[in-house]
Amino acid sequence: MKGIHAGLNAVAAVLAIISLVAVFDFHNGKNIPNMYSLHSWVGLIAVILYMLQLLLGVSVFLLPLAPLSLRALLMPIHVYSGLLIFGTVIATALMGVTEKLIFSVKNPAYNTLPPEGVFTNTLGLLILVFGALIFWIVTRPQWKRPKEPNSILLQPNGGAPEGVDGPTAVHFGNMDKSDSELNSEAAARKRNIALDETGQRSTMTK
Amino acid sequence: MKGIHAGLNAVAAVLAIISLVAVFDFHNGKNIPNMYSLHSWVGLIAVILYMLQLLLGVSVFLLPLAPLSLRALLMPIHVYSGLLIFGTVIATALMGVTEKLIFSVKNPAYNTLPPEGVFTNTLGLLILVFGALIFWIVTRPQWKRPKEPNSILLQPNGGAPEGVDGPTAVHFGNMDKSDSELNSEAAARKRNIALDETGQRSTMTK
Repeated sequence: MKGIHAGLNAVAAVLAIISLVAVFDFHNGKNIPNMYSLHSWVGLIAVILYMLQLLLGVSVFLLPLAPLSLRALLMPIHVYSGLLIFGTVIATALMGVTEKLIFSVKNPAYNTLPPEGVFTNTLGLLILVFGALIFWIVTRPQWKRPKEPNSILLQPNGGAPEGVDGPTAVHFGNMDKSDSELNSEAAARKRNIALDETGQRSTMTK
Repeated sequence: MKGIHAGLNAVAAVLAIISLVAVFDFHNGKNIPNMYSLHSWVGLIAVILYMLQLLLGVSVFLLPLAPLSLRALLMPIHVYSGLLIFGTVIATALMGVTEKLIFSVKNPAYNTLPPEGVFTNTLGLLILVFGALIFWIVTRPQWKRPKEPNSILLQPNGGAPEGVDGPTAVHFGNMDKSDSELNSEAAARKRNIALDETGQRSTMTK
């Protein structure tokens, strides 16, 4: 799972770089100045933060070098940064759509709301809905990736409740805790769960 | 605390309505069409969702009418919606700044990046930084409002660890759990914490 996470983000980073080269080429070809707009400032910051996030992720979490304590320290920042960069990219896209509409929908003008305007505004709304859905998914504790494949089936007593309640889940309450929490054994295990999970995340054993 | 939360949001809702009236008046006074831009679409949706959020919050969580089960069901949605609307407002503000820069920075043009452009781009970045800080604050489990005033001081054994780990906290791990989790008594209490907290949140006892 961690390999897929890192791989998909690496592909996205390459696509982001290609997009940036395309934008600068387009600007230079049309004699449009670079990097003057708020869209460009926020967008470039997002790409730089994304590259740093990828670099930090690979060097700390993927390579078997960093100690568990460092991984545990940086994991909350890694999760926060990922969501923040994602949200910033949504905002950058909406600013880009806004700019493009103002610059390019000229005849009839954008402010008469021609079909192009309605269509592209709707595209903007869909980008926002996409962001909202992703934010919903990543903040559901019950949709958190289980600790082990099929852990809910294989470990009915104790395994599943912890598995859906890890570092990336937003904790809106403990309504879905199973009765296994009543075992003092489960409580003792819970005390060590964060380090356990960090250890698990720091190896490619699954 | 809940009264302050509701009160501040009610004030913000009144300010939002005043702002909308001002925008429509400005547009009508200058013969600028209303509601054509993506900024306006997203902004109006955000304000409508905000009003619905406020209405739902008051009727379900503030008034002593809704049953605990309904409060427990709606609390995760209330928390998610609040953060989503906040993020959408940040994005709307950035789109608004982008529009205003393109429309109003004309001599010299925005794309030559005059001081007005640098100043207002920087304002946009500060709006983004503000959003990032708020998102950091609301997702720190240890910065979650304690269950009771001074509960960390008054309840050193068991009270504090639950108090900083409630419905609105993002759960990035259990690194800060105290040893009181080892008590089976604490585990049993934890099983009931969500309903307890919902009950507490549904009255004005603190």
